[in-house]
Amino acid sequence: MDNNTNTNGMLGVLGGMGPMAGAAFAMRLAALTPADRDQEHIPTLLLNDPRIPDRSTARVAGGEDPLPYMKSGIEFLNASGARLIAIPCNTAHLWYDQLAAASRCPVLHIVESVVQDLKRQGIARGRIGLMGTTATLALGLYQQTLEQHGYECVLPEADEVESLCMQSIRAVKANRLDDALAPAVQCVRRLQTRGADAVALGCTELPLAIPHAVRPGLGIVLTDSIDALALAAIERYRS
Amino acid sequence: MDNNTNTNGMLGVLGGMGPMAGAAFAMRLAALTPADRDQEHIPTLLLNDPRIPDRSTARVAGGEDPLPYMKSGIEFLNASGARLIAIPCNTAHLWYDQLAAASRCPVLHIVESVVQDLKRQGIARGRIGLMGTTATLALGLYQQTLEQHGYECVLPEADEVESLCMQSIRAVKANRLDDALAPAVQCVRRLQTRGADAVALGCTELPLAIPHAVRPGLGIVLTDSIDALALAAIERYRS
Repeated sequence: MDNNTNTNGMLGVLGGMGPMAGAAFAMRLAALTPADRDQEHIPTLLLNDPRIPDRSTARVAGGEDPLPYMKSGIEFLNASGARLIAIPCNTAHLWYDQLAAASRCPVLHIVESVVQDLKRQGIARGRIGLMGTTATLALGLYQQTLEQHGYECVLPEADEVESLCMQSIRAVKANRLDDALAPAVQCVRRLQTRGADAVALGCTELPLAIPHAVRPGLGIVLTDSIDALALAAIERYRS
Repeated sequence: MDNNTNTNGMLGVLGGMGPMAGAAFAMRLAALTPADRDQEHIPTLLLNDPRIPDRSTARVAGGEDPLPYMKSGIEFLNASGARLIAIPCNTAHLWYDQLAAASRCPVLHIVESVVQDLKRQGIARGRIGLMGTTATLALGLYQQTLEQHGYECVLPEADEVESLCMQSIRAVKANRLDDALAPAVQCVRRLQTRGADAVALGCTELPLAIPHAVRPGLGIVLTDSIDALALAAIERYRS
């Protein structure tokens, strides 16, 4: 039987960055898909490879280059018959152009998915607080796109990126979800105090740090980069 | 670059039955793995293919045979370099012998994983209440193995399989998680009333119906076939 029988036409997911974020993407994809039975869901091939070298370390501390690993993953998903690819890792999008160029099928961009999600939630203009890894924030992954769409950006201070965002992200990656909530919520509140109309959880560990059930109590619109990417994947896959 | 560079030596997961159960398996695998950073997690390839024909319908109502689809998935995971395979669907294990025979690498058995989990939780003997699909319960997937290990089985009545187990399972498959809890909990309570010392959530939708946070309040040991399979995968992969 052809090796690709099962996988032709699937949504390919380059995950593992981190592994819980990759799995959470697959879970939210299922949860957000309008479906009455298994067979109405989107067939998905998730390459959840946590061996890919750390993206932040590579960009801000001269760590091993993750690009060859990520390109190999994109090539595997293409060879397996993916017709659309999602990458549930914001920092990985610092290499988006190279990854999209390595793919024969379209690759969704997580920042564009977040912008779509802001508009979906009725935030068409205003100040967007940004949370993410040191590399994502320092290298401006979100800022340029948001400004092109007419938003202003509100960033955490450098020490807050480390003591709030990165502390929360590292706790998720180490499976200490209980330790991840408080610093993430504190960062949301500080960005809100500085005038943010909405806050982007611009690292795929952050939606795991702040569970959906907690969010209505925060009193500010959050855009969740996992959910935003899943909604973009559903819309694009079905169009 | 070799197509299999990323996937050699991975844990292969034949999922999609249903898709949320496949994704939840990947999520619980990450959550239950002792790890301080991404790179310590288990590399996983999840083929989450919800197009596989319904397993219960095939066994109890003459629906399309899912075996060729499942075998093709097993072959894809092998060809991609999987060194161990997990199938987070109990009903699919009615075809376990054929699937294991189609695989060059070992395939974990979900019922054996549940027995290991009962022992891990201190239940070495006694009466085990069984919940699952009509096909799983009617064809005795769990009963023989549990009895070989010295357990007695307590089953729901035929009408309860339909009105409690299947109703809950179908609600999960249709993304109506809120509707899935009450019938599942009612089934647990009835099995407990009939003398069960523990209850096996023997369908991978059922752990999604009864969230972890709810379980301590039920006052009976539950064994969760998703968590049991994830723990078995971690133990076997690392040995």
